[in-house]
Amino acid sequence: MPVRRLAVVGTGLIGASVGLAAKRAGVEWVTGWDPDGEAAAGAARRGAVDVATPTLAAALEGADLVLVAAPVAQLAAQVKAALAATGEETTVTDVGSTKTAVCAAAAGSARFIGGHPMAGGEARGPEHAKAELFEGATWFLTPTAQTAPERYRLVHGFVGDLGATPVAVDPASHDRLVALTSHLPHALANLLVNQAGATRIEGHEPLAAAGGSLRDMTRVAGSNPRLWTDIFLQNREAVLETLREHRRLVERLEAALAAGDADFLAAWIGEASTNRRRLLAEAFADPGALQRLSVHIPDRPGVFAAITQALGAERINIEDFEMHHHSPERGGELEMIVAGEPEAQRAAAIIARQGYDAVISPVLDER
Amino acid sequence: MPVRRLAVVGTGLIGASVGLAAKRAGVEWVTGWDPDGEAAAGAARRGAVDVATPTLAAALEGADLVLVAAPVAQLAAQVKAALAATGEETTVTDVGSTKTAVCAAAAGSARFIGGHPMAGGEARGPEHAKAELFEGATWFLTPTAQTAPERYRLVHGFVGDLGATPVAVDPASHDRLVALTSHLPHALANLLVNQAGATRIEGHEPLAAAGGSLRDMTRVAGSNPRLWTDIFLQNREAVLETLREHRRLVERLEAALAAGDADFLAAWIGEASTNRRRLLAEAFADPGALQRLSVHIPDRPGVFAAITQALGAERINIEDFEMHHHSPERGGELEMIVAGEPEAQRAAAIIARQGYDAVISPVLDER
Repeated sequence: MPVRRLAVVGTGLIGASVGLAAKRAGVEWVTGWDPDGEAAAGAARRGAVDVATPTLAAALEGADLVLVAAPVAQLAAQVKAALAATGEETTVTDVGSTKTAVCAAAAGSARFIGGHPMAGGEARGPEHAKAELFEGATWFLTPTAQTAPERYRLVHGFVGDLGATPVAVDPASHDRLVALTSHLPHALANLLVNQAGATRIEGHEPLAAAGGSLRDMTRVAGSNPRLWTDIFLQNREAVLETLREHRRLVERLEAALAAGDADFLAAWIGEASTNRRRLLAEAFADPGALQRLSVHIPDRPGVFAAITQALGAERINIEDFEMHHHSPERGGELEMIVAGEPEAQRAAAIIARQGYDAVISPVLDER
Repeated sequence: MPVRRLAVVGTGLIGASVGLAAKRAGVEWVTGWDPDGEAAAGAARRGAVDVATPTLAAALEGADLVLVAAPVAQLAAQVKAALAATGEETTVTDVGSTKTAVCAAAAGSARFIGGHPMAGGEARGPEHAKAELFEGATWFLTPTAQTAPERYRLVHGFVGDLGATPVAVDPASHDRLVALTSHLPHALANLLVNQAGATRIEGHEPLAAAGGSLRDMTRVAGSNPRLWTDIFLQNREAVLETLREHRRLVERLEAALAAGDADFLAAWIGEASTNRRRLLAEAFADPGALQRLSVHIPDRPGVFAAITQALGAERINIEDFEMHHHSPERGGELEMIVAGEPEAQRAAAIIARQGYDAVISPVLDER
């Protein structure tokens, strides 16, 4: 039996996007409540909920499924409140980015299944909600020994209907996974930009001399201080574990450098290359075939559109691309990823006919 | 007196690009030599050198300036050879990514000035050379107390003629700067992807669960094992210094997490936000005004071109953009950066007329 009536508790970006996606998937009635009345009204205006209720109790009334999308620090309390205010007819889930604390708060309720969609982005608030937010995203679900199977099935089906791929994992493993794949990268981005920012070298500012790698690696640095303070604290055991292991690996690298151990360094970089390939394999069928085309183009409106149009007309499939402006005077650098060397050659020929010179190189360069 | 005759020693990507840029800037005669005869011939075919000489001596004959663009491990020997084979009429410079060792090898010669252009990219070999490679790039020069001022002036002018911005720094400071802004980020990318790759959590592969931050932060991981082994070893003192400081900062973060110190974490993330803003200020006039537009578009040829064309026709200046494909079925996410909220609103309205929904959010989100 699918979800017919959904209650969304917390109607920010994620909650309101769930509302939009649920309605698109055919859920009959979506209620929404938010302690911030303006956020609830915004979700209603956006069509993400059929009604913004003035109280939590009114939102929960008659719901098959309650989805709690509160900030991580308020999650446990909201889930407890939702369980307390509902009965056997209602299943409760959440979308918090850590799972141990909220699952503990549910205290073994058969009606609760923790969840965490790997989607979001920089925007916040219901005005930025979109039904497509979860398409293709992994959505972790953390059933426990107490979870009733039919309730798990309900949430599993619901998440799939939103376009996401449900992946079951126990709460503690989930928190270790996100510590490693999300919280550690965030921490390193902050550490790196702060180390560069705090250092002066004979009057030179490292941040002014930064190349592309520092810019790429600090993209998430400094984002949402309140949200991230809570995430780090909520998941501090798992984050501490990854930081300790990271520090151990740094020490091993230091020892190899101090010893001038070229063999270690080459093997270590080679291992990174293999792991990078595995990472890309999640997004691309054959990462080894990926080719990068780099084109220097002038900063004039229309040049870029002309190139993409010409590629589109010839049905070149561009997997990914980026453009970085140097300056209005000097133009910018367009980088496109295509699959396969023949496709790359074909794209380069089309670009050459537009009067520009494309340089092809493999994405995975392991020489 | 500008450079009229240039000798390029090592005609790979950088050497051949210098040749192209020099010829574009009006240098009369460019010779090239490479221990790999095929690389020298390739540079000649590409028009990067007027002649590929069979010997180093023939390339150096009569040169005003010798530019050594050898791999970092061979740099010191090649610079010594170039100085030994030339006389007072010839100035020698290099493009190596570390400077202490090569400056030491030049042994206080008044005719040598170390150099390092902050440009390159993933491609290698003369076939990928381009005259625009150095436009807008910082080009470090490392004059010493022994450097003759008129020779410094010659190299300074030459580098500016290539389109780069010369920045003087002493060799040791240069190596500390690049250790912090380039070698440390590279090391952290390798460490991060290897830690994620080496961990299994209850059967789950962290690399399979990776979000965008891990992918962004490991972009340079595993690249060019031979080149990077040499770079790390050449600059090991400075790299060790940055790694030790990094480890100290990790320990401080661990202590704050263990103590549950929310104030520390919030201040630390806030500091990262300020530093990220300073980093972006190098590329953008007013980073605080930058707005991100996110648009979900179907994976059909032409959609993307239509959007960029419409923006181009309305003279919207796109500062940067990226597109990441989810899949052929689900389309992808287009992200564009524009300066100023009014410009972002105007762009969103144009995109809405194309039938797509653009979500606007500030690039620097410091709430």
